[in-house]
Amino acid sequence: MSGAARPTVGIIGAGQLGRMLALAALPLGIRCRFYDRVADAPGGHVGELVVGEFDDLGRLREFARGVDVVTFDWENVPVESVRALKGVAPVYPAANALEQSQDRLYEKALFRDLGIPTAPYAPVDLASDLEQACARLGRPGILKTRRLGYDGKGQARIRAAADVATAWGALGGQPLVYEGFVRFEREVSLVAARSRRGEIAYYPLVENAHEHGILAITRAPYAHAKLQREAERHMRAVLEHFRYVGVLTIEFFVERGRLVANEMAPRVHNSGHWTIEGAETSQFENHVRAILGLPLGSTTTRGHAAMVNFVGRLPKPARALAAAGLHLHDYGKSEARPGRKLGHATLVAATPAERERRLKAALKLR
Amino acid sequence: MSGAARPTVGIIGAGQLGRMLALAALPLGIRCRFYDRVADAPGGHVGELVVGEFDDLGRLREFARGVDVVTFDWENVPVESVRALKGVAPVYPAANALEQSQDRLYEKALFRDLGIPTAPYAPVDLASDLEQACARLGRPGILKTRRLGYDGKGQARIRAAADVATAWGALGGQPLVYEGFVRFEREVSLVAARSRRGEIAYYPLVENAHEHGILAITRAPYAHAKLQREAERHMRAVLEHFRYVGVLTIEFFVERGRLVANEMAPRVHNSGHWTIEGAETSQFENHVRAILGLPLGSTTTRGHAAMVNFVGRLPKPARALAAAGLHLHDYGKSEARPGRKLGHATLVAATPAERERRLKAALKLR
Repeated sequence: MSGAARPTVGIIGAGQLGRMLALAALPLGIRCRFYDRVADAPGGHVGELVVGEFDDLGRLREFARGVDVVTFDWENVPVESVRALKGVAPVYPAANALEQSQDRLYEKALFRDLGIPTAPYAPVDLASDLEQACARLGRPGILKTRRLGYDGKGQARIRAAADVATAWGALGGQPLVYEGFVRFEREVSLVAARSRRGEIAYYPLVENAHEHGILAITRAPYAHAKLQREAERHMRAVLEHFRYVGVLTIEFFVERGRLVANEMAPRVHNSGHWTIEGAETSQFENHVRAILGLPLGSTTTRGHAAMVNFVGRLPKPARALAAAGLHLHDYGKSEARPGRKLGHATLVAATPAERERRLKAALKLR
Repeated sequence: MSGAARPTVGIIGAGQLGRMLALAALPLGIRCRFYDRVADAPGGHVGELVVGEFDDLGRLREFARGVDVVTFDWENVPVESVRALKGVAPVYPAANALEQSQDRLYEKALFRDLGIPTAPYAPVDLASDLEQACARLGRPGILKTRRLGYDGKGQARIRAAADVATAWGALGGQPLVYEGFVRFEREVSLVAARSRRGEIAYYPLVENAHEHGILAITRAPYAHAKLQREAERHMRAVLEHFRYVGVLTIEFFVERGRLVANEMAPRVHNSGHWTIEGAETSQFENHVRAILGLPLGSTTTRGHAAMVNFVGRLPKPARALAAAGLHLHDYGKSEARPGRKLGHATLVAATPAERERRLKAALKLR
């Protein structure tokens, strides 16, 4: 046992996800080194932070030198930057999975190839493509940028015929995809981990509620044996396709009792934050275990959990911590901005009813 | 909400306890700054580390400047060093509690004054004191240094008459105390927190097993309603006596169905490590909450927990993490030495029987 024998994980992106990865890694004796554009990124409080642009290949290679494995906390890391680390340190998840998840069109094509239902969709490059897509797939629908969309950004809803021109005006001129609207009953997601040894661990499905395109509340578990089996089958297909290593998240709509894949994220996910207190092993610890080739930990739930995001504003700690059973997560961001995720709270209870009571109190803190 | 508004906690001592305090503080948006003699202390991985001697008052004052509150992870911090911070930053627990717990004689006198049963004892300064103490309190008994004893160090068992001279030879020449032997059925401890607002939270009693004078295993809870009430009454007496702020631990013997106080520690305690996974709020988070005047968190248990110390040697992570439900805590120490606490594992299960099964597997890792 010596310091030198303990692995170091390099994390590209030092946001809240990277920070929570490091907080899960530290008790295992594992240290993290971060790479980010900004010097006051939240990860810098829990590990060394190398500052550089995400496309500065030389700086990235320097960062990765001496690290045992590299991962990322952000799916829009340039694929070329990840590929440039070849020969310096292994990167998990691998570049091919990252690449496919960065483009909504390729992502949907993959789902289709693997037999996973998706919303009807069509690529849109020209205004005429959009007219044709609306005619073929109907309205309402959503026009989305193929790349760099998150938290509802890069999207335009199309209901009436007049919306077509407005949507094109807002987003036209870049690769787009038009999606037919799914009349879903609920939104759920599945988080799973696949390790370097090929071991897979699935968390239970959870139910998500969004506000203004941003995740607001997650309730876990969404206990539904049939949909859980369906979700795990879809997840396994994607994991095995890529021989994926790390945590992967797939968001689904539930439409007439079946799952329709919405999108995937090749990383730990906001809808898995509840696992820190609500599962035997958190998504963060399982990601670290997976990329280091360690055995995965149990995903068994501890009761019924809810997660509430604090967006744009954090509650006063004295008030938040007075709430029964509330676990506060302040990401330590130096600046509050509207629409910015600043923290979250997790509530765990023995029954769904008690969880709802605790959740109600937590929602008042927002 | 800005970085400046978030408190910083100064921790004198950057061992595993300080490190676990920081890991509990970080999710609350609280950062820790450490002070330690050695530059590679475990706390340095999770916060700024100021290196200096524990009696370097100037350096300590420099360390405490700009910190919102100072605490310590080690009870042998010189009391003068703590007193020297007056006017720089508040220190919790306060110097008077620290002082009294540093001396076994004063500690026992306090217990007696507060009506808390202790082993029969007598101060020993001269060889003749020891002869008299043995005559009056009988043998077997234990001769202990009044100061700086921990993990069984600074103690000599006296069984036969011949042991008296041996014990005196080993320990004589410093302030000592002779304790009559308590024929205890079990060893238990109580961890509790009292906040700056006077709020008190008690964890359940736990049962401890020592090996070679070092804590080896803790099982939680030790469910015994009568003894829990008794322990809380004793704890409250000590907490209120000092108007104590922070986590305090009292170790007891159970002798013929009643509690006999052995010693107290003015800090988070090894027998409370199980609370990270086994209680709703860990002892570390409650200590941070207490010293910052935040509401205390629930001490409710999550099932039945066991904690196993890794002393002198850590298991291979790949082997340890394969054990069902095992939570590994590697303190990140740079050097393994015999008798040195390097890490621990926590097991949590729904029933005591399942806990014992998991514990059995964990014990094989040592």
